[in-house]
Amino acid sequence: MGYTPEQAEILVQALPYIQRYSGKTIVIKYGGNAMVDDELRNSVARDVVLLRFVGMKPVLVHGGGPEISEVMKRLGKEPTFVNGLRVTDAETMEIVEMVLTGKTNKGIVSQINQHGGKAVGLSGKDANLFIAEKAKGDVDLGYVGKVTNINPEILHALMEDGYIPVISSVAVGAKGESYNINADHIAGELAAAVGAAKIILLTDVRGIYDDIKDENTLRSTLTVKEAQGMIDSGKVSSGMIPKVEAAITAVQGGVERAHIIDGTMKYALLMEIFTDTGIGTMITG
Amino acid sequence: MGYTPEQAEILVQALPYIQRYSGKTIVIKYGGNAMVDDELRNSVARDVVLLRFVGMKPVLVHGGGPEISEVMKRLGKEPTFVNGLRVTDAETMEIVEMVLTGKTNKGIVSQINQHGGKAVGLSGKDANLFIAEKAKGDVDLGYVGKVTNINPEILHALMEDGYIPVISSVAVGAKGESYNINADHIAGELAAAVGAAKIILLTDVRGIYDDIKDENTLRSTLTVKEAQGMIDSGKVSSGMIPKVEAAITAVQGGVERAHIIDGTMKYALLMEIFTDTGIGTMITG
Amino acid sequence: MGYTPEQAEILVQALPYIQRYSGKTIVIKYGGNAMVDDELRNSVARDVVLLRFVGMKPVLVHGGGPEISEVMKRLGKEPTFVNGLRVTDAETMEIVEMVLTGKTNKGIVSQINQHGGKAVGLSGKDANLFIAEKAKGDVDLGYVGKVTNINPEILHALMEDGYIPVISSVAVGAKGESYNINADHIAGELAAAVGAAKIILLTDVRGIYDDIKDENTLRSTLTVKEAQGMIDSGKVSSGMIPKVEAAITAVQGGVERAHIIDGTMKYALLMEIFTDTGIGTMITG
Amino acid sequence: MGYTPEQAEILVQALPYIQRYSGKTIVIKYGGNAMVDDELRNSVARDVVLLRFVGMKPVLVHGGGPEISEVMKRLGKEPTFVNGLRVTDAETMEIVEMVLTGKTNKGIVSQINQHGGKAVGLSGKDANLFIAEKAKGDVDLGYVGKVTNINPEILHALMEDGYIPVISSVAVGAKGESYNINADHIAGELAAAVGAAKIILLTDVRGIYDDIKDENTLRSTLTVKEAQGMIDSGKVSSGMIPKVEAAITAVQGGVERAHIIDGTMKYALLMEIFTDTGIGTMITG
Amino acid sequence: MGYTPEQAEILVQALPYIQRYSGKTIVIKYGGNAMVDDELRNSVARDVVLLRFVGMKPVLVHGGGPEISEVMKRLGKEPTFVNGLRVTDAETMEIVEMVLTGKTNKGIVSQINQHGGKAVGLSGKDANLFIAEKAKGDVDLGYVGKVTNINPEILHALMEDGYIPVISSVAVGAKGESYNINADHIAGELAAAVGAAKIILLTDVRGIYDDIKDENTLRSTLTVKEAQGMIDSGKVSSGMIPKVEAAITAVQGGVERAHIIDGTMKYALLMEIFTDTGIGTMITG
Amino acid sequence: MGYTPEQAEILVQALPYIQRYSGKTIVIKYGGNAMVDDELRNSVARDVVLLRFVGMKPVLVHGGGPEISEVMKRLGKEPTFVNGLRVTDAETMEIVEMVLTGKTNKGIVSQINQHGGKAVGLSGKDANLFIAEKAKGDVDLGYVGKVTNINPEILHALMEDGYIPVISSVAVGAKGESYNINADHIAGELAAAVGAAKIILLTDVRGIYDDIKDENTLRSTLTVKEAQGMIDSGKVSSGMIPKVEAAITAVQGGVERAHIIDGTMKYALLMEIFTDTGIGTMITG
Repeated sequence: MGYTPEQAEILVQALPYIQRYSGKTIVIKYGGNAMVDDELRNSVARDVVLLRFVGMKPVLVHGGGPEISEVMKRLGKEPTFVNGLRVTDAETMEIVEMVLTGKTNKGIVSQINQHGGKAVGLSGKDANLFIAEKAKGDVDLGYVGKVTNINPEILHALMEDGYIPVISSVAVGAKGESYNINADHIAGELAAAVGAAKIILLTDVRGIYDDIKDENTLRSTLTVKEAQGMIDSGKVSSGMIPKVEAAITAVQGGVERAHIIDGTMKYALLMEIFTDTGIGTMITG
Repeated sequence: MGYTPEQAEILVQALPYIQRYSGKTIVIKYGGNAMVDDELRNSVARDVVLLRFVGMKPVLVHGGGPEISEVMKRLGKEPTFVNGLRVTDAETMEIVEMVLTGKTNKGIVSQINQHGGKAVGLSGKDANLFIAEKAKGDVDLGYVGKVTNINPEILHALMEDGYIPVISSVAVGAKGESYNINADHIAGELAAAVGAAKIILLTDVRGIYDDIKDENTLRSTLTVKEAQGMIDSGKVSSGMIPKVEAAITAVQGGVERAHIIDGTMKYALLMEIFTDTGIGTMITG
Repeated sequence: MGYTPEQAEILVQALPYIQRYSGKTIVIKYGGNAMVDDELRNSVARDVVLLRFVGMKPVLVHGGGPEISEVMKRLGKEPTFVNGLRVTDAETMEIVEMVLTGKTNKGIVSQINQHGGKAVGLSGKDANLFIAEKAKGDVDLGYVGKVTNINPEILHALMEDGYIPVISSVAVGAKGESYNINADHIAGELAAAVGAAKIILLTDVRGIYDDIKDENTLRSTLTVKEAQGMIDSGKVSSGMIPKVEAAITAVQGGVERAHIIDGTMKYALLMEIFTDTGIGTMITG
Repeated sequence: MGYTPEQAEILVQALPYIQRYSGKTIVIKYGGNAMVDDELRNSVARDVVLLRFVGMKPVLVHGGGPEISEVMKRLGKEPTFVNGLRVTDAETMEIVEMVLTGKTNKGIVSQINQHGGKAVGLSGKDANLFIAEKAKGDVDLGYVGKVTNINPEILHALMEDGYIPVISSVAVGAKGESYNINADHIAGELAAAVGAAKIILLTDVRGIYDDIKDENTLRSTLTVKEAQGMIDSGKVSSGMIPKVEAAITAVQGGVERAHIIDGTMKYALLMEIFTDTGIGTMITG
Repeated sequence: MGYTPEQAEILVQALPYIQRYSGKTIVIKYGGNAMVDDELRNSVARDVVLLRFVGMKPVLVHGGGPEISEVMKRLGKEPTFVNGLRVTDAETMEIVEMVLTGKTNKGIVSQINQHGGKAVGLSGKDANLFIAEKAKGDVDLGYVGKVTNINPEILHALMEDGYIPVISSVAVGAKGESYNINADHIAGELAAAVGAAKIILLTDVRGIYDDIKDENTLRSTLTVKEAQGMIDSGKVSSGMIPKVEAAITAVQGGVERAHIIDGTMKYALLMEIFTDTGIGTMITG
Repeated sequence: MGYTPEQAEILVQALPYIQRYSGKTIVIKYGGNAMVDDELRNSVARDVVLLRFVGMKPVLVHGGGPEISEVMKRLGKEPTFVNGLRVTDAETMEIVEMVLTGKTNKGIVSQINQHGGKAVGLSGKDANLFIAEKAKGDVDLGYVGKVTNINPEILHALMEDGYIPVISSVAVGAKGESYNINADHIAGELAAAVGAAKIILLTDVRGIYDDIKDENTLRSTLTVKEAQGMIDSGKVSSGMIPKVEAAITAVQGGVERAHIIDGTMKYALLMEIFTDTGIGTMITG
């Protein structure tokens, strides 16, 4: 069946946004609760291919919490968390890496390629993309790392040739050991390092609320200063903290706009990019 | 205001067509009766910019019959036609060239650029794009020409750098003199010469009919052979003949698909390109 | 017939000048009274092709006053001037554009190509080359524009590929409307914008005189300051004022040398470029 | 401490081999029993970096049998084999992919990068490198695949920029599903597809013997015909069959030389490449 | 002083020839009797620079007979010739090479660079440009060589970057030894190997005569067949034989035109290239 | 015969040094007493080819004192020196140039090419590489020059295409005349001008001694300041002075390390480059 004029008009409305981001890099953080449903994953993959074909350069960064815990349980290991961070002993790290890089990553890659994209999956070990050291803190979390250096050349090389990089949140240490790193944080740092025009963090709530119990208090825009204030005052709840921090990191690193949106809505990426108002919460300088 | 999910879905439906024509050249013949209304011209210009930004390489070829006759009358010259061809004495040729290249062409260029495209207007004289000689026939039509050679290098150079060529139907002779050439015919020949994937001829009827008085007899697809047969049998009426001939020339020259569609419908180009069924009449090998 | 040794020697004398301007851009303002005679036009075209083939990058800018007035009269419109500027209502603007871009421009293009060059004609509308707004002043001159922005990328792209740009003095406004701009002024601004090494303004007198009635008072060189002084003191007469202003604009914008020479002399361009002394008046910083 | 003249002489002896393979692609099949010892893996990684820095283009292909079985057992699944092929149900396939791509692959990548190389790990899913369909046979082996198409563009892009591709033996099906493929076979096919000059298959025996019980019967060279004969006659034992088949595939596909060597010997790769005689068994056309 | 119009006209007459050879390679054999006078050498150097700056790609090949004999005599060695070929023992070869490559070659290079060219001197040893073996014959001539292979890549690399190669007639043998080769012959072979459009052999007579004693019998054009006939019939005298052979070799190898002209005339190169009739004798297929 | 594991290990030990100098330029001053023995010259040539094939960019600079004097004597001219500098009258200069550029240079070129390198010999005249003027001093030394300008573009062009430049110590004056320049000095200046990472000056003693009579006083490292002090205090003897000065010039011009080593030891270059400690004396900032 064909397009109606009404449908064509909708396509035409996308033109200003296609022009604005033509040739620009857009980092998309994708994972966890926004990634549970296969149909939804499929839909995100197709949207990403669309972005690439209309001239943008999407880069995906993903974690994979629920899948990791599920495999750990099958292997008879009980996931343990301290302040929301996974305690990662050597055996857990091996599982984290296998799941993120060998399962989650390739699943996303495969879905993008099904829609005609050319995705290439990477972990932070490939071409030394993410260099980390052991994170310091009151509690020893094992192989939880803090990224000290990003080598984005491989991303520019791939994007230049039309590929879509899909990156798992694993970093490499000075001796080649693996580190479990926070996917939100690394997405924010990466967006700054590659000179992205936009970072979009997909989560499973609509955005940031003044009062999380009141739907009407959704903040559609925040300055970096306001966002930091909401973390300091405790208004931003635990799971959202790294996302807001990532947004702040990105904007302070030169990214024009950071968005926290509800990735469980079908077409969320497109609704964000192809409109003036966007959806969810936008954080800018 | 933002996109609704329903609207985003429409965008997503365009993806397969965007992929199919990514990096491909599409020649669009535009002019005459499809070009009378300013709002419509504006709409076509925007559609062309959209095609370019989603990765296609549109090339426009235009004539401009009504505008020429209008200026001629203001100059006190009566337009004369023999078998649908304008009798073109030296003074008429000067008017034809001024109108097509100095008015119609720059009008289209300007509208495309208003929508964020980078159009460059050319006539067949620029870079010797169209070389012609005097057309032979029973009646001396003056400066009516027959194209003997096309030099498309300038088009490839411009398209490579992101420009949209807009070309008026004027050719140059061996001594630098101007020739009035048929815009439909040259569009068909040009499509073959630049290796286009598609040629779209915009007109003011829905397509080709078995019986022009019966709307239900629209032919959605024709082979080259069938199309030639309809010319030979007189089923294709006078104004449509050069369009069908151009379609045949293009397809025989290696263009995959030629389309004759109603350019007075808003979004006609998009409705043709972004669907499987297309609109109007498609002619293929 | 062959070269004599005496003739070869003349060729050899050109070598230092060929070397000096190899790969350099030279803007040539051509038009009006320097453009009336067909043989002369032909000669200038051939000289420009010669410049290109010996390694320079010529760019032509032209107006076309007499031709415009002539067509206006044929259309029953009386040209009106205020302080030497054409009053340009909407209908006049349409005529100006048709004549400059559709007739004068393509005539020059065609003659250059006749001599083996690869000329491409542009107006300021193509690729948004000249952006203008309505000129302000005591009298409303209609569509007389003042250039606010030059986008020279298209020129660099064309010159890189061996083409010779030929540009008519028409600019585009914010809404796509046309503006009539002074060809001398825009030539001076363009020379600065493209980083030309030289600008040559062809006119129909030998250069600038201290006393216009005394042939012996021709100034072969002037500083920018001296040139401005001659405008201020009224020594430079009306038609010459925009030419001297253009020369000053160019030199202040980084062009090494500006020349005002008699374009009605055959070989004037060559006599200017291929000698140390040059002809006419040279204005430098 | 420094080089002695004797040591420098050894370096000089490598020159002819460095010249012969300068700019050439060398596919190295690495895995299974040749990959068990960490010190050995470290040594192979360094040798590969050396090959790259002296101007060759190494590509690694690996399987990972023992590691897969080990993880399966930890997950309470018993590995089953039919004719040496792993019965691969959906759950097993998931484990195979996680281990090969998420653990084995990244381990090799990390070790190469530790030695200053720029390795990038890929599976056959990335950029649709290996397209497969379900292998047909008497027994249903589940997700055991047969490669139907190789898309090596990503490898050329990476090698051109100085990267070392490391590829796990997982392929992708028409619906995005994963397939377990034989690493030897795919290495042979890939060597032909990328136009390699050499393929080296690392195993844990010295090469091919006429009589496997008699060390003195090692065949240092075999023609494709002789190699095929030894398979047909049963002289080549089960684990060696896919290696010899891969060698034959490669040579028939245009690779000059295929080598089966003992990867458990330190410096095996260097001893093979940097000598005339090589080690192990060489198969040529 | 400036150009007169008459002088400018001469420049303009060169345009068709500049266009014809724009971007084309022209091999010039220069040496021996055409190279004795310093003023003449200076003039040739300047003419070559002129050719380069007007867009051609000149390559010079030279011998240097008289200078070699002169140095030999200073070293107390008597030059010996058999059938016009220098008997070249090891000591003579050393002198030949020193004089040709260290004196004659650098003298030409220096003069070209004095005129603003960028000449680079090479012998056949550089980048293995000319590979030779000992010439066979009735008499042992020592290190007189026959070229078996030409590696012209270095010439293309230099010409692409704007350099003018100047090449001495010395070749290298399989063991690195030097060979004295005929400069005329190698010029002819080189012209074919680099795909030259023209070869010009400078000598000290006006061209080829039917009767060398009668000035009026100069042949302005010869076919290859006719030229061969004149060698066979003995009409071409000894010193001219290798020049005619070189011309034949070049034309048979795809060079359009070979010219034998009087290099002792000032501007001979220009008079040959910048006219239709040329001077001297032209040999074509 | 093949590599033993012990031999392969030696190759592996070179890896860190190969990595460190990959893509870096290394200037090697070679000549005089380090160049007398043919076997040694052959060995140096092969080592240079090895450096190029493992990714470094060697540039050779050479003088040729003994050969010059030897040819002078054969021509009956007595070499004369003042303060270690050759008195160079016009005839001597001609001999110097012929020997250095026509004999020594091409000998080195030929030997490098024998080992599979692509050497191109240049003198300072080629592409105006070294511009000099007459050296001033108490005694008139004739054509002894002081370099005033280096034009290294030709070296970058050649190295980019894989060639190894070999440069004789002859420079060109403002009128095209030749100058005899000190090879050590020009090597130091050239190293700075091309942005070399290292300069190695080959001589016939082990390095710089505190007490030249006591082998145990070899200084393995010196700062620029210490090196200058040893010249000032007379500890550095006459022949060594220009070498130490060249090292100082290079280091002050941005070269990281300068080395003075014994080129008469076989593999001296490799022993210097492929170890941490190096051999001879290293001078750094």
